[in-house]
Amino acid sequence: MTSQKKSGWEADPAPLLRVGDGFTLDAVDANGSPGFVGNKAAGKAELNKDAELLSEKQERLFAASKGEATDAVLLVLQAMDTAGKGGIVRHVVGSVDPQGVALSAFKAPTEEELSHDFLWRIKRAVPEPGLIGVFDRSHYEDVLIARVRGLADDVEIERRYGAILEFEQELVDRGIRIVKVMLHISADEQKARLAQRLDRPDKHWKFNPGDIDERQHWSAYQDAYQAVFERTSSEAAPWHVVPANKKWYARVAVQRLLLDALTEIDPQWPPADYDVEEQKTRLAAT
Amino acid sequence: MTSQKKSGWEADPAPLLRVGDGFTLDAVDANGSPGFVGNKAAGKAELNKDAELLSEKQERLFAASKGEATDAVLLVLQAMDTAGKGGIVRHVVGSVDPQGVALSAFKAPTEEELSHDFLWRIKRAVPEPGLIGVFDRSHYEDVLIARVRGLADDVEIERRYGAILEFEQELVDRGIRIVKVMLHISADEQKARLAQRLDRPDKHWKFNPGDIDERQHWSAYQDAYQAVFERTSSEAAPWHVVPANKKWYARVAVQRLLLDALTEIDPQWPPADYDVEEQKTRLAAT
Repeated sequence: MTSQKKSGWEADPAPLLRVGDGFTLDAVDANGSPGFVGNKAAGKAELNKDAELLSEKQERLFAASKGEATDAVLLVLQAMDTAGKGGIVRHVVGSVDPQGVALSAFKAPTEEELSHDFLWRIKRAVPEPGLIGVFDRSHYEDVLIARVRGLADDVEIERRYGAILEFEQELVDRGIRIVKVMLHISADEQKARLAQRLDRPDKHWKFNPGDIDERQHWSAYQDAYQAVFERTSSEAAPWHVVPANKKWYARVAVQRLLLDALTEIDPQWPPADYDVEEQKTRLAAT
Repeated sequence: MTSQKKSGWEADPAPLLRVGDGFTLDAVDANGSPGFVGNKAAGKAELNKDAELLSEKQERLFAASKGEATDAVLLVLQAMDTAGKGGIVRHVVGSVDPQGVALSAFKAPTEEELSHDFLWRIKRAVPEPGLIGVFDRSHYEDVLIARVRGLADDVEIERRYGAILEFEQELVDRGIRIVKVMLHISADEQKARLAQRLDRPDKHWKFNPGDIDERQHWSAYQDAYQAVFERTSSEAAPWHVVPANKKWYARVAVQRLLLDALTEIDPQWPPADYDVEEQKTRLAAT
């Protein structure tokens, strides 16, 4: 079968990227492109080809919410700095109607946010029915940087894993399909990307000296991610680890995960909640 | 000069569309395409050609805000139903990075919103520096439907014109460039578009019986728009009336207005607020 295909997906990447029993982050090749046959050009072609499809499905999702449907999608993006979260938003999410997207970027919490439970600000950003929500960083920061930097003690981190599982189950029960993605780059790749930001004046604004501080805790972060995967990759909301040294692969893979979610929802145009013929008559009289 | 050009802009449409002294909405041909030479295919080609340019300028605007710049853009979209506000958001605004856009759709005000001054909810949605804000409907509803439907008396409507002028001047003084656009369709074109929504099951969700109620007040709305133009098309924030019977023209014209705004701002990559060489040394040591 696949021998007939020069390039493109030879397998749905979802099961290949999904975190299951026995998963170890160490074993993932950040240079890989699981399920995809072809080079960068083929990846870009695939991304363009499916952009329209994603856009169509998003419109149906949005329309369905004007009827009875409560479905929504929530894409959770986590990664080390420079791994390409922004590129996913721009090149994947950017292909759908902005009216159908609810984007939330979570930075270091404000004083007010810190005065509440860690899920308080997250709950306020959960997408309404019909929307594709995107979390650029998320509640997982509260068990990642919080663990690596000792911002919460072990007991609190444990409590948070449980709270996250419960929270995500509630969302899924409400009709929100959660697509959790960790973009996985290698330490060497991050070094090269940070160096590029320092070399190019038009990229200086993207660099923050704090990025190097965090980089110095690389292995502690990898351990924290491993713990997150073990504790929070549930049946209801599994994690996907997407190799991201090749930006084109990460983009086309996340696009496919979103398409899978929308295909499973299979949103339908809602029936009119008015009498169509009556309205035609009214319109004709104007 | 223009004779060499087969299709595209033969003149910047901004001055042609801008509402100045003696403007009358009645005199605008909703079928027109001021400044543009060419047909629908040419319009679409122009839109695609400049999408990348708009995206680049938006990135610079965003980057500049990470330095000292406080510039932002606010696109205010007003129109009768079906005139194509959604298409502007999807096809024009949709070509830039979603991270750089702040979209606000103003529906009928909630109880809470009604308990405040009409500008309360508007002020909360003003774009932060670096962003392109889009108002899908706006504070102008409070002098349009409010006037047509008698939701506010004449004295209050008068007060609001003044409050709007003052508010918009404040925004401009803060560095927000306001692009006010009324998409102008003819009554016949609206009838055809509403009929299409009633004819197509995949468009039923876009139709609301209330659209016909509003349509029955067509000439009162045209009068209310005329009053808005006379009272609120200021030097600081002029109105533009964009013929919109041809969707492709309205899109490419609004794209050009946004490009003009960004060109005038001329955002620059901000200088690094750290010592680049020092950071290179730190990075090399990791």
